[in-house]
Amino acid sequence: MSWEDNVRKVVPYTPGEQPKIKNIIKLNTNENPYPPAPGVVEALKNMDVSDYRKYPDPSCTKLVDAIASFYSVDPEKVFVGVGSDDVLAMAFLTFFNSDKNILFPDITYSFYDVWADLYRIPYTQVPLKEDFTIDPEDYYVENGGVVIANPNAPTGVALPLSAIEEIVRKNSDVIVIVDEAYVDFGGESALPLIDKYDNLLVVQTFSKSRSMAGMRIGYAFGCKKLIKYLYDVKFSFNSYTMNMPSIELGAAAIADKDYFDKTRSMVIATRERAKKELKDLGFEFGDSMTNFIFAKHPDKHGKDIFDYLRQNGIIVRRFDLPRISEYLRISIGTDEEMDELIRVLRKFLKE
Amino acid sequence: MSWEDNVRKVVPYTPGEQPKIKNIIKLNTNENPYPPAPGVVEALKNMDVSDYRKYPDPSCTKLVDAIASFYSVDPEKVFVGVGSDDVLAMAFLTFFNSDKNILFPDITYSFYDVWADLYRIPYTQVPLKEDFTIDPEDYYVENGGVVIANPNAPTGVALPLSAIEEIVRKNSDVIVIVDEAYVDFGGESALPLIDKYDNLLVVQTFSKSRSMAGMRIGYAFGCKKLIKYLYDVKFSFNSYTMNMPSIELGAAAIADKDYFDKTRSMVIATRERAKKELKDLGFEFGDSMTNFIFAKHPDKHGKDIFDYLRQNGIIVRRFDLPRISEYLRISIGTDEEMDELIRVLRKFLKE
Repeated sequence: MSWEDNVRKVVPYTPGEQPKIKNIIKLNTNENPYPPAPGVVEALKNMDVSDYRKYPDPSCTKLVDAIASFYSVDPEKVFVGVGSDDVLAMAFLTFFNSDKNILFPDITYSFYDVWADLYRIPYTQVPLKEDFTIDPEDYYVENGGVVIANPNAPTGVALPLSAIEEIVRKNSDVIVIVDEAYVDFGGESALPLIDKYDNLLVVQTFSKSRSMAGMRIGYAFGCKKLIKYLYDVKFSFNSYTMNMPSIELGAAAIADKDYFDKTRSMVIATRERAKKELKDLGFEFGDSMTNFIFAKHPDKHGKDIFDYLRQNGIIVRRFDLPRISEYLRISIGTDEEMDELIRVLRKFLKE
Repeated sequence: MSWEDNVRKVVPYTPGEQPKIKNIIKLNTNENPYPPAPGVVEALKNMDVSDYRKYPDPSCTKLVDAIASFYSVDPEKVFVGVGSDDVLAMAFLTFFNSDKNILFPDITYSFYDVWADLYRIPYTQVPLKEDFTIDPEDYYVENGGVVIANPNAPTGVALPLSAIEEIVRKNSDVIVIVDEAYVDFGGESALPLIDKYDNLLVVQTFSKSRSMAGMRIGYAFGCKKLIKYLYDVKFSFNSYTMNMPSIELGAAAIADKDYFDKTRSMVIATRERAKKELKDLGFEFGDSMTNFIFAKHPDKHGKDIFDYLRQNGIIVRRFDLPRISEYLRISIGTDEEMDELIRVLRKFLKE
């Protein structure tokens, strides 16, 4: 008998590469090409390092209030966590304690099944339609909960709010989580529905539209009762997860609406231009409402395109998984980065 | 049927109060009275906010290397997490998958049973002896793993390294976690044993002796194989938990050995002086090797002392639990803060 017999056996996740090489064009982890709001620089300067000796405010009041203020919601309807991964995992743990299977698409964010396994939650992966869209009717069946990324990842395709509302309405006896990591780039948020449906949790993040992936801040909206349940579970086993910089700098990052609107408009404009150019090169993709495009080419293998780009200093993301192994997920960078991408792809397609 | 039927029901933990009142003397959460090392101010100034748009290095290389360098160990023997709570919870999840009960003291850090419940790990809470010391022989029985806080909390009492080694040696078929949150204030670390015993995990934190509770950094040492298992589990469900400031500022905080030695010596000196004065007032306590003293008074109820201190602007910690409800856990503050504590206690005892 060895202690190794009792070790939890897992398949380690490989996150998108964070290369240490200089001058690489990094279009593989859906990071925002623009820096955080200028107010973050000021907030950083104003931090008093001597405060760090103390524990942070476990309620993260300053950050919660800033989020609540931006979205004009009651602070008691806001939950925060260490990235939306932490928020989503906490929601799985808190709300999915039924014997019935929870439902989410077969092609979606790769951690849903991981957290379900972790917390021993039974689940069904519902196939997307051939065109990678979600059929809302697939979710009108008995279940233990529903998780929908909207827009979906890595497909980039969004459901209209009316379809989300119908899924929430038809599942009033379970919690429906809508993961809106990418919603600020063109989707319709379900946030206005939280006062109408007490079974709806809307999850967002600072990692994409707020340019703060490095700070690890996610948040969720729901009715007061639902948010309280989340905090009760969170506080029951780890009180202090958000550190002082994430609370202070997060509050500064979300306060600047003009900068937020300006940078997300820039990302959207670059994406629409990239769509046009990729289409001209023969690429096929759904109508992305995110800061990435999930595309394949009818004449070339995804792996070959991926390798060629890599050799030419451009990193994109490819998932070696059923149904999507021919696709590349290309993050929207600056206009200059996308120009270089198109130039290299054009060269590849001519060879 | 309502979604509330499927909500995880918990007893929320109430962390030590973080009062927003000014001029209060806060001796309730074992924070260091001194600020982090001066290098942290410099590191903060040098942070480039525009980097925050990117995900942090999931391997936390800079922080891991700084810890490895300070302790002269191989970086592959170092794990880091969001405070030692995160590190310990990850270790429970990774290593305690036996059907046999894990063992830890009945009076110890209050999250051990919480994480065991969370991950459905069976456990036995082994009673401390009457004098609140651990009897190593209690741990020489068949079990699924062992967790010992050394020095123990909230008692403050330490086991000699020889006793720890014997527990590790007699339990070679399971993982023994030694939680050394307070070890820098007078305990003997088990770190030198990790090369001799592959079943030993030593957990430490930046929250106490490094004056960085606000930054949420914990770490662990073990043999390479053991550390790899921990990372595999961690990466399998959340790749990015340590944000950029914790990596950068943590590395700066641990680099300054002189400052570390100076401030911990100051805390130890203040503690020894406080022990003498508390003893003179009739208080009873074990020989604390931590930055707190766990004391009771033969003539007064713990609750009455607690309330009187609170009314006089001093907050300490009291646990309303079996065997320890008459005790107060008093963190070691500055000399001035401890003088005021003694003054108020003296007044109370005269009344």
